[in-house]
Amino acid sequence: MSHSPSKKAKAETTFVDVPTHSDFPIQNLPYGIFSTREDPENKRVGVAIGNQVLDLAVIAAEGHFSFDASFFADSSLNSFMGAGKTTWDAARATIKRLLSADEPTLRDDPELQSRALINQSEVLMHLPAKVGDYTDFYSSREHATNVGIMFRGKDNALQPNWLHLPVGYHGRASTVVVSGTDIRRPRGQLQADKADPSKGSIFAPSRLLDIELEVGFFVGPATKMGDSIDIDVAENHIFGVVLMNDWSARDIQKWEYVPLGPFGAKNFGTTISPWVVTLAALEPFRTEPSFGPVQNPEPLPYLLDSNYAKGTYDIHLEVDLKPENGDYTAISKSNYKYMYWNMKQQLVHHSITGCSMNPGDLLGSGTISGVAEDSFGSMLELSWQGTKEIPIANGETRKFLKDGDTINIRGFCQGNGYRIGFGDCAGKILPAHV
Amino acid sequence: MSHSPSKKAKAETTFVDVPTHSDFPIQNLPYGIFSTREDPENKRVGVAIGNQVLDLAVIAAEGHFSFDASFFADSSLNSFMGAGKTTWDAARATIKRLLSADEPTLRDDPELQSRALINQSEVLMHLPAKVGDYTDFYSSREHATNVGIMFRGKDNALQPNWLHLPVGYHGRASTVVVSGTDIRRPRGQLQADKADPSKGSIFAPSRLLDIELEVGFFVGPATKMGDSIDIDVAENHIFGVVLMNDWSARDIQKWEYVPLGPFGAKNFGTTISPWVVTLAALEPFRTEPSFGPVQNPEPLPYLLDSNYAKGTYDIHLEVDLKPENGDYTAISKSNYKYMYWNMKQQLVHHSITGCSMNPGDLLGSGTISGVAEDSFGSMLELSWQGTKEIPIANGETRKFLKDGDTINIRGFCQGNGYRIGFGDCAGKILPAHV
Repeated sequence: MSHSPSKKAKAETTFVDVPTHSDFPIQNLPYGIFSTREDPENKRVGVAIGNQVLDLAVIAAEGHFSFDASFFADSSLNSFMGAGKTTWDAARATIKRLLSADEPTLRDDPELQSRALINQSEVLMHLPAKVGDYTDFYSSREHATNVGIMFRGKDNALQPNWLHLPVGYHGRASTVVVSGTDIRRPRGQLQADKADPSKGSIFAPSRLLDIELEVGFFVGPATKMGDSIDIDVAENHIFGVVLMNDWSARDIQKWEYVPLGPFGAKNFGTTISPWVVTLAALEPFRTEPSFGPVQNPEPLPYLLDSNYAKGTYDIHLEVDLKPENGDYTAISKSNYKYMYWNMKQQLVHHSITGCSMNPGDLLGSGTISGVAEDSFGSMLELSWQGTKEIPIANGETRKFLKDGDTINIRGFCQGNGYRIGFGDCAGKILPAHV
Repeated sequence: MSHSPSKKAKAETTFVDVPTHSDFPIQNLPYGIFSTREDPENKRVGVAIGNQVLDLAVIAAEGHFSFDASFFADSSLNSFMGAGKTTWDAARATIKRLLSADEPTLRDDPELQSRALINQSEVLMHLPAKVGDYTDFYSSREHATNVGIMFRGKDNALQPNWLHLPVGYHGRASTVVVSGTDIRRPRGQLQADKADPSKGSIFAPSRLLDIELEVGFFVGPATKMGDSIDIDVAENHIFGVVLMNDWSARDIQKWEYVPLGPFGAKNFGTTISPWVVTLAALEPFRTEPSFGPVQNPEPLPYLLDSNYAKGTYDIHLEVDLKPENGDYTAISKSNYKYMYWNMKQQLVHHSITGCSMNPGDLLGSGTISGVAEDSFGSMLELSWQGTKEIPIANGETRKFLKDGDTINIRGFCQGNGYRIGFGDCAGKILPAHV
């Protein structure tokens, strides 16, 4: 099928009503796992369009895909993620065609619409994938520098390895949860005397509960143990992107993290947005060649991205905080493009030792901070280690999170007359167990 | 059913031939996942007895269990692990009865025997569980002290937190493999100048490839996110124990591990033994009340094990090294009882922040070193950072592993006339990819 330019432009509109500023125009088409409130256990794959969900299990059963699409009836995206780019492209083309304004198949079939299009207000969203392994990086230079200054002073802010490799650590997969899941304030060991570790520890609820503004990506096709991924084909192993909040208990972290890294300070919960936005949808939002930062020193050849300047994406990010009885206030506005190490480099470095990567593995960016003080991605930085107040609604302020606070991370790419959004990445803090 | 003491003693022998020094007498009965060489994909649950495997899928299909035992036809132990202690006890009682010398059901039924008992030489062993999350601790005081001396000197060997909590980190689940799986020497970033990190890094195969002698345990019934496990019931959440080799690339580790802990230095492979030895089998081998070490300072109440002196197990451990064309030499003899933090304390601490624990989660002890120099659990310690030669077969020596070397970890509890063993925990080093 060949399209004239005018036809192609036409295909970018849908017969489904898409409100202005919707996260989900036809240019987006993110995948998620949903069920209906009436039948909450019947999970399957859907695509968000406007305020609707297109039920891909129904579309697959109707035989509209050119490949075996039985995985759209699965309760996770893992099999689809593992199917690879050719299948992803074919699926996207079919879905775009079915939803387009000039395609009658679904548009003119009210019976099929009644089965295949479900209002988002009627659905429950679930974790998009079974996360086999979750890894978190530390790839924003501004964030690493800020934290380094706080802990080691200005002259030793970045560790010697930081500019040579994307520093990362293995996180806890069992507590990666979907937006809307409450987060219980963790209890754990806190240093008894803030200034003197030799005084030992006490057991208490965390007093310095924090957020980390992140973007995560899901791995596609598997690699075998012993093998690694070449940087030139790394994007073929990246299925898509979600927003992420890596909740962090700074006081637990401070006491426990030497020498093996964060553990209980992070493993109580990590929230992600329910809709996985594909690299195909993000393609028009690659950073411009003129965009920095430059990598200096030049990375070793296995990490050298010949397309580095266009290697990441211009995703506007915002952190909103809502107290128990109040409204949301934006406490940070950042952008995904402020990453020093991009997704490809993170994935390649992860696999370089021969670590096998699997569909549904989740890799987090690390906290994304910009240069400006209001673009910092954690309350640790926004309150500069508790020395400053962060203003929120009703004249209140915060240094760290209080019980009852809800955090929502939002993100979008700004197109010409449309936005590619992610939906909510929200969680509310419940009081610690007594 | 009540047993007289003499009957009970009699039940500890089996009609199956068990060679002297077998790892698998009737007192052991460890669980594993096996298939036959003829039908390698048909994985199911088996129990090792002498040189045989008892096929529990067959025993379950015959209706010999008092509970729904369909999970014995699964390709992993996760469902059985999650079923809990009552089911574990019932399963063990039935299996012990069926294998006992005075029980005719299987003993006198050659047809059933031909279907249910398979020679170990005919079977392939697989990973016993789908490892959802893998965590590694650092709980041997001798090991932590040795490594601390090397890196920070004698006066600062243990970090301030070490005596207050079982330090641990999240590892990589995707590369936990069963004994017999080859391990590819990893490539990665090594510090260009050993003494000066400011000189940056080079890309090369690891030159300091090492082992870590460990014991791991599998988690049983799940806990919910936000909840934690009480120390008094922690053993009910521990299914059983395996031997573990946490392969480590010391040069990659040295460069990468600040500030978030080990990553590529560990995530290329972790080998475990195929047979999971249950706590019921280990029960007679608890450490004696007279056995140290004492925990000083006293742990915080949530970590305080009132049964600490008997809180771990007397498991003899040995590391054997075999060069490409040579025989095995024992390079270390240690014991699991040299752990400062026991399994219960590790599990409780892991869950204290509300981290959900799931059946099949694997928690490693960390390297187990004793006081004596020949009981150190890593080559880093045995060669004291490469300053000493470790003698092996044929007059050869090692400081770290060479390509073609095979490491096998062995372990057993010594009973009165029998041994509770684990089988092999072996892996061979393949040369790095070029």
